[in-house]
Amino acid sequence: MLAKGDGMSHGNGNGNGNGNGNGNGNGKKSLPTVGADPIAGLPAIDGFPASEKAYVEADDLRVPVRRIHLQGDNPPFDVYDTSGPQGIDPHHGLPKLRAPWIAGRLANGDTGNRSQMHYARRGVITPEMRFVAIRESVTPEFVRDELASGRAILPANIHHPESEPMIIGKNFLVKINANIGNSAVTSTIAEEVDKLRWAVKWGADTVMDLSTGKNIHETREWIIRNSPVPIGTVPIYQCLEKVHGDPEKLNIDLFIDTLIEQAEQGVDYFTIHAGVRLAYIPLTASRTTGIVSRGGSIMAKWCLSHHRENFLYTEFERICEVMKKYDVAFSLGDGLRPGSTADANDRAQLAELETLGELTDIAWKHDVQTMIEGPGHVPMHKIKENVEIQMKVCKEAPFYTLGPLVTDIAPGYDHITSAIGAAMIGWFGTAMLCYVTPKEHLGLPNRDDVKDGVIAYKIAAHAADLAKGHPGARLRDDALSKARFEFRWEDQFNLSLDPDTAKDFHDETLPAPAAKGAHFCSMCGPKFCSMKITEEVRAMAEQGMAAKSSEFRDAGSTLYAGSDDHHH
Amino acid sequence: MLAKGDGMSHGNGNGNGNGNGNGNGNGKKSLPTVGADPIAGLPAIDGFPASEKAYVEADDLRVPVRRIHLQGDNPPFDVYDTSGPQGIDPHHGLPKLRAPWIAGRLANGDTGNRSQMHYARRGVITPEMRFVAIRESVTPEFVRDELASGRAILPANIHHPESEPMIIGKNFLVKINANIGNSAVTSTIAEEVDKLRWAVKWGADTVMDLSTGKNIHETREWIIRNSPVPIGTVPIYQCLEKVHGDPEKLNIDLFIDTLIEQAEQGVDYFTIHAGVRLAYIPLTASRTTGIVSRGGSIMAKWCLSHHRENFLYTEFERICEVMKKYDVAFSLGDGLRPGSTADANDRAQLAELETLGELTDIAWKHDVQTMIEGPGHVPMHKIKENVEIQMKVCKEAPFYTLGPLVTDIAPGYDHITSAIGAAMIGWFGTAMLCYVTPKEHLGLPNRDDVKDGVIAYKIAAHAADLAKGHPGARLRDDALSKARFEFRWEDQFNLSLDPDTAKDFHDETLPAPAAKGAHFCSMCGPKFCSMKITEEVRAMAEQGMAAKSSEFRDAGSTLYAGSDDHHH
Repeated sequence: MLAKGDGMSHGNGNGNGNGNGNGNGNGKKSLPTVGADPIAGLPAIDGFPASEKAYVEADDLRVPVRRIHLQGDNPPFDVYDTSGPQGIDPHHGLPKLRAPWIAGRLANGDTGNRSQMHYARRGVITPEMRFVAIRESVTPEFVRDELASGRAILPANIHHPESEPMIIGKNFLVKINANIGNSAVTSTIAEEVDKLRWAVKWGADTVMDLSTGKNIHETREWIIRNSPVPIGTVPIYQCLEKVHGDPEKLNIDLFIDTLIEQAEQGVDYFTIHAGVRLAYIPLTASRTTGIVSRGGSIMAKWCLSHHRENFLYTEFERICEVMKKYDVAFSLGDGLRPGSTADANDRAQLAELETLGELTDIAWKHDVQTMIEGPGHVPMHKIKENVEIQMKVCKEAPFYTLGPLVTDIAPGYDHITSAIGAAMIGWFGTAMLCYVTPKEHLGLPNRDDVKDGVIAYKIAAHAADLAKGHPGARLRDDALSKARFEFRWEDQFNLSLDPDTAKDFHDETLPAPAAKGAHFCSMCGPKFCSMKITEEVRAMAEQGMAAKSSEFRDAGSTLYAGSDDHHH
Repeated sequence: MLAKGDGMSHGNGNGNGNGNGNGNGNGKKSLPTVGADPIAGLPAIDGFPASEKAYVEADDLRVPVRRIHLQGDNPPFDVYDTSGPQGIDPHHGLPKLRAPWIAGRLANGDTGNRSQMHYARRGVITPEMRFVAIRESVTPEFVRDELASGRAILPANIHHPESEPMIIGKNFLVKINANIGNSAVTSTIAEEVDKLRWAVKWGADTVMDLSTGKNIHETREWIIRNSPVPIGTVPIYQCLEKVHGDPEKLNIDLFIDTLIEQAEQGVDYFTIHAGVRLAYIPLTASRTTGIVSRGGSIMAKWCLSHHRENFLYTEFERICEVMKKYDVAFSLGDGLRPGSTADANDRAQLAELETLGELTDIAWKHDVQTMIEGPGHVPMHKIKENVEIQMKVCKEAPFYTLGPLVTDIAPGYDHITSAIGAAMIGWFGTAMLCYVTPKEHLGLPNRDDVKDGVIAYKIAAHAADLAKGHPGARLRDDALSKARFEFRWEDQFNLSLDPDTAKDFHDETLPAPAAKGAHFCSMCGPKFCSMKITEEVRAMAEQGMAAKSSEFRDAGSTLYAGSDDHHH
């Protein structure tokens, strides 16, 4: 990691050769480069129009928001902001916001268990909890209580001081995760760091680095040092690289070493497929699409080859020991999730889910923060049932689902098939939605795909917040609708998830600057709009309806200007 | 219309100058051109790879399907096909499939009421009903019964013999509508005819021509003559053109004349905003977004100016007389639909809905086919309630909704925000989903937007069919998932809604033809795939699990090839 005395290892050697940093994240050196600069040529990430980074200040905390300035007398509108500090040279990494908080805790009363759950259960409200309380407009005590109960997690590795605290739980805003990561076939470190910055610009709340190719360790280092959001990984991928692709050679010692290596770098949560038990594997034999999780198939292979129980399951408490030392959260993987709607909610999936509930109890015994991964591919009528079972079996530990896709027939559009399921499952109580990009099933996402995936999932998460009645969620809808109805075009664009695209679409037909003040658009032209009539309707309602028709007619009543919908 | 003795009128003069065709649709002449060819330069519409137009033949009927040929021993897969006869010069219009059926009915036992509901209620099973029964895999008697009860409509103007019969009702496949149409600001006849052909290629079940600019009549003529699907319009738009944009000058005679003009051309359903009653207009005064329906605002303006009840409401039975003569179906417009999630399910909307229920009874008294339009903008938790009220108030007359959008904050992506709501509302019983394109709220959709809108809505409709447990709906998902799992890449592409896009996405990273046979893709590379392990799992399950591990290991068990999901 950055703070290491001897610089960073490049490559992904066996064992935990990178496992011994100094741990407090206060180092000041730049990220090292050896030979060619691995992130040369990173494009700049531009901001949002009419927006500025602002901070809500409270006590010693400065909590970032994006402040959108509106036209006329309308007050500025603040939105939750994941983009992190701007204008930082990625060679230097982000400022270490949490370093003093972490150092303070390690200096005073360190028990060896550094998890936010551990502090919460001892009644301690950490700065991270206070930060999150401001971000979510709740009390610090509420945050602490949710963490203590296990209903929420605050992923915050003590070696990732750059992260801005965020919380994942059903009683908070629904979050989204974006996956990035290179593979053996394609992409570079610079591309992945760019995708990270791009994903958080558009609103990713966490990012998973799923790299499987060369340079796993180095790619991860660049990502973590530049990430204002928690980073998740699937450590078994790196383990498999270390044994040259032969899953039979995997073992718990190698796995623990790899966890330590990654925890030292600052990974905030680990996907671990400890629920793929030997006995469940035959349950997948009659499936339409068998086992589709990479981690799940690796562990199934190991179990079958050795005809032994999954070592991640049998040695789960050893794993907990690593997790609590660094405050890495579990993301208990659903290795047997359905890969098609045909396989949804089947015996294999639900058997594994039962085991994840059992493992949740063990993790909580160690005060290790834990969330539970979920499907996948689920037709709409089976989504609610899936959430209800998860809530019961895993005692409301946060659910973290991949979509789900509600049909299998649209490769190329699975950000949409899955946004449908994601919105619904979010409404039903899922705490975080793992995005799906248009490239799902077809290839690795590029920059455009990352953006499309993030936007689709911001839509799903926000729709879920609205449906849950989250206090404050509808403010942005109402502000944008008001701007729309008042023909404040620029405000409508700027309040949207993607102002540039909204503006470009408008400008395709009406590019003149004057059209931004026009009380109509190209959909209906000037004769068919509804705003003027509604203004008149309002005036009449105020004055009472009686005998107003002649007065109204005298006032001149040409139908005038614009419309909201291109519909009938 | 095409069959007129004196050619077609160009332009949209006042009154029903085009109202007197010969009515049986047997004319053979080409569509006339005067001066410049209005559809010159139409691009060709290409087909789908590995697909052919085929016909299911039964008695005298030939019902189109698209037959997708698969690799190896896999049988071809037939999908519902809306694309119509291919390779026809649009100057000639499509063949008049239904002309002999219509002529036969007019020659034998014509009562003056030509609606499919009228025949159904008299116990007559028309060829249209038999055609639909084959398309939907149900019995003709079931179709007749659903039409007789009003739970379904079969839009089929006797002057649109080119249409291939289809049915809209909650007990059939969920349908989608695509809106096209030029406005005063932009687009040409050729563009609109191209959008029609493009929309039905991708799967639009009906198309609405919402033109509001010049050449309304001529544009519509070209569209109808080339449409294999029912065409809907909003006649009040043309009426408003006839009175030069002044809604006060609208009246029932002008409206009836316009209905006749359009019915003569062959429009299959009319959106009529007869539920915007005078007393409901003040209910919109306190809304966030007032009245956003164009038709609704026009009628509200008329009501306020005259301080009189909506003439579409008071003269509704006169309108029914026109509808039944041509078999034009009502699409009772929701002029007071919410234009923002803030206004969803409010008093104005529900008051109008009550009136639409009342009008449904009147329409049914005349045996006029009727569906009910619905919103709009509705947060997820209010969708089910909306459908349930509609079902009750309108006695299960088919519901035809615009989305709904489940959040207002994503202009530029409203095909997605609305596909979420559309999938859910379809599941809950909505019979047809009116698409929303990415340009919604911003501009008129171009060709790409039409495709994006149609695909998003095919996803929503199919997801709804799956969730409703429609027999047969899951066959396509299962066939595609099987192809995916067997690494039949070309089959996976060709079974999808948009094969070219799926293939292009795959080929971005692995363009070599050999990759189409590869047991991996660029997501995970060759080391991380799950198929081989599942094959092994299946083999072991067949042989029993006991003592197989050494045998398995001896057989050589390198983890091998490809994966389904780019996830953990």
